[in-house]
Amino acid sequence: MDVRAAVAFEAGKPLEVTTVQLEGPREGEVLVEIKATGICHTDAFTLSGSDPEGLFPAILGHEGAGVVVEVGPGVTTLKPGDHVIPLYTPECRQCDYCLSRKTNLCQKIRITQGRGQMPDGTSRFSYKGKPVLHYMGTSTFANYTVVPEIALAKIRTDAPFDKVCYIGCGVTTGIGAVINTAKATAGCNAVVFGLGGIGLNVIQGLQLVGANMIVGVDLNDDKEAWGRQFGMTHFVNPKKVSGDIVAHLVELTKGGADYSFDCTGNTTVMRQALECAHKGWGESVIIGVAGAGQEISTRPFQLVTGRVWRGTAFGGARGRTDVPKIVDWYMDGKIQIDPMITHVLPLEQINDAFDLMHHGKSIRAVVTF
Amino acid sequence: MDVRAAVAFEAGKPLEVTTVQLEGPREGEVLVEIKATGICHTDAFTLSGSDPEGLFPAILGHEGAGVVVEVGPGVTTLKPGDHVIPLYTPECRQCDYCLSRKTNLCQKIRITQGRGQMPDGTSRFSYKGKPVLHYMGTSTFANYTVVPEIALAKIRTDAPFDKVCYIGCGVTTGIGAVINTAKATAGCNAVVFGLGGIGLNVIQGLQLVGANMIVGVDLNDDKEAWGRQFGMTHFVNPKKVSGDIVAHLVELTKGGADYSFDCTGNTTVMRQALECAHKGWGESVIIGVAGAGQEISTRPFQLVTGRVWRGTAFGGARGRTDVPKIVDWYMDGKIQIDPMITHVLPLEQINDAFDLMHHGKSIRAVVTF
Repeated sequence: MDVRAAVAFEAGKPLEVTTVQLEGPREGEVLVEIKATGICHTDAFTLSGSDPEGLFPAILGHEGAGVVVEVGPGVTTLKPGDHVIPLYTPECRQCDYCLSRKTNLCQKIRITQGRGQMPDGTSRFSYKGKPVLHYMGTSTFANYTVVPEIALAKIRTDAPFDKVCYIGCGVTTGIGAVINTAKATAGCNAVVFGLGGIGLNVIQGLQLVGANMIVGVDLNDDKEAWGRQFGMTHFVNPKKVSGDIVAHLVELTKGGADYSFDCTGNTTVMRQALECAHKGWGESVIIGVAGAGQEISTRPFQLVTGRVWRGTAFGGARGRTDVPKIVDWYMDGKIQIDPMITHVLPLEQINDAFDLMHHGKSIRAVVTF
Repeated sequence: MDVRAAVAFEAGKPLEVTTVQLEGPREGEVLVEIKATGICHTDAFTLSGSDPEGLFPAILGHEGAGVVVEVGPGVTTLKPGDHVIPLYTPECRQCDYCLSRKTNLCQKIRITQGRGQMPDGTSRFSYKGKPVLHYMGTSTFANYTVVPEIALAKIRTDAPFDKVCYIGCGVTTGIGAVINTAKATAGCNAVVFGLGGIGLNVIQGLQLVGANMIVGVDLNDDKEAWGRQFGMTHFVNPKKVSGDIVAHLVELTKGGADYSFDCTGNTTVMRQALECAHKGWGESVIIGVAGAGQEISTRPFQLVTGRVWRGTAFGGARGRTDVPKIVDWYMDGKIQIDPMITHVLPLEQINDAFDLMHHGKSIRAVVTF
């Protein structure tokens, strides 16, 4: 079938909105009509060519929501008409990782997904007879896409696509880092570095669990109002702190953060996040994605005196199990999404959505089909 | 009173066994007759001058056992005749750290202890009328010492001093890293780097909790027999591995260690320990003390994909609460100490005990008085 897609033909070039061909779903696969998709820094990272694992031509996009159109043989948990969120971290519930109960990093289709392929090693997309690759197993920058059954979360049908698509990445990553990875508890003091979309979701996650002090750190003063809207209690602009930012944050939190979160991808900030954690028990969670080859460092004394260094991917969430719950939380008003969706654009303007993100004008831009 | 002590008059010089003066215990303090003391790498680190916080002249030693001789005013939990192990990590049960339930790093007397003083800011030791400093709050290289009540674990009276003194540091650090810090569980696969005294105690801790695979890593083949004596199931000499040691260990453990432990103090090894941990959930614990200014590094991707980096001090043990239990475990035969005490020497030969350690000839040398 013909589908409308924004194709990344080459690294470093804008996406090209055109018509590509899509095969129907094979064994264990599902054809989904994408209704809305968010634009995330990870898409931009790959498109820029900086991602050493980036492959082209491909159809990017990993933060979508849509409706099941057709299911392939063997699909038992979904049927046409179901509303779904595609998952770049699948949940097969069968592999050693899923069964470990300790991680959300299902490995069932990792290798083919990393190659831009469906689990059988081929692509469903093509352009002028030549294959176009999938991306993160989701390829939501197309009005129809094919996704493995294990990479689809079934959600309630009354949830608006142009809001809950954001749960496919940013919302779940931020809130999940708080509740699944840090397991932050009521009364804690927390520091959040970087108040973009992820940072704001970390903040609302901390508010959700009843944190005491939620300190936001950003170089841009405009972010203070954004942070406060989601529960931030204190704002620090490092440019306006005389002296060491770590010492400042330790003093502000009366000994250090019980939990700190890096949402910047900057390895220097990751170190600050660790070192502002409370001696004896403070845990620091890396959420941001660093540039290729960059490393984090600290003195081992920081760990020997009780700090813990962790990271998180997709907020530690098991997609099929946890994403529908987060959709419910949104529908029940426990968490906010609407104010974060600052721009909604048609597919034809998807490159404008990237520009808004690059210029810091959007928290989240969403493309609808 | 006159006491016999091995005094560290200067960095880089041998200890000098001589007679020094000791004042009696003041408020909250206890006079202890030391019956035996272990010689630990930390004593050697300070004596060498490499420890930036080392102070001289001082009476070193932090791995002792002895008998209470006299208690100062206000001491309520100890009386003359009680058998005790001095604690370089005290347990006041009153400070924010003790009350946090999350750490063993009691901060009650940290500042004065770091200065080589009793909590009132003075020293009880003197030589020719001039003060000699305490060390780690314990100063067990003397036949009598004064220690704060909160830094003494009361133990059973039938435990042999020349064995249980080792519980004052090495045994508790190794076993505690497994049970308190890693919280390792039955069936786990673990890798232990460095099969000195700490590493062997990590190994017996892993055996105690029912670990499945206990891999020991050491550059010295002679350590294989030592490791196996305490429960090690596999031995790896990195010099004999062709290719990457991390990849080798990941393959050996079928995906990586559930828990890994650095007992070397080498920051390159600390990185290997982290990176051989299992994707998704492997936790690595730093026990070794690195040289001043040295840093650990890794790619943040290692943490984002689920590995956790921790450290431990005194095995995460609360001294007054946990040390008496470990003494019981030894007396009940749940853990071994006797084979690790490879040398017992009189105080006059304490410098020989350091030599044995430096030359790798002892697992633990103990000095008796």
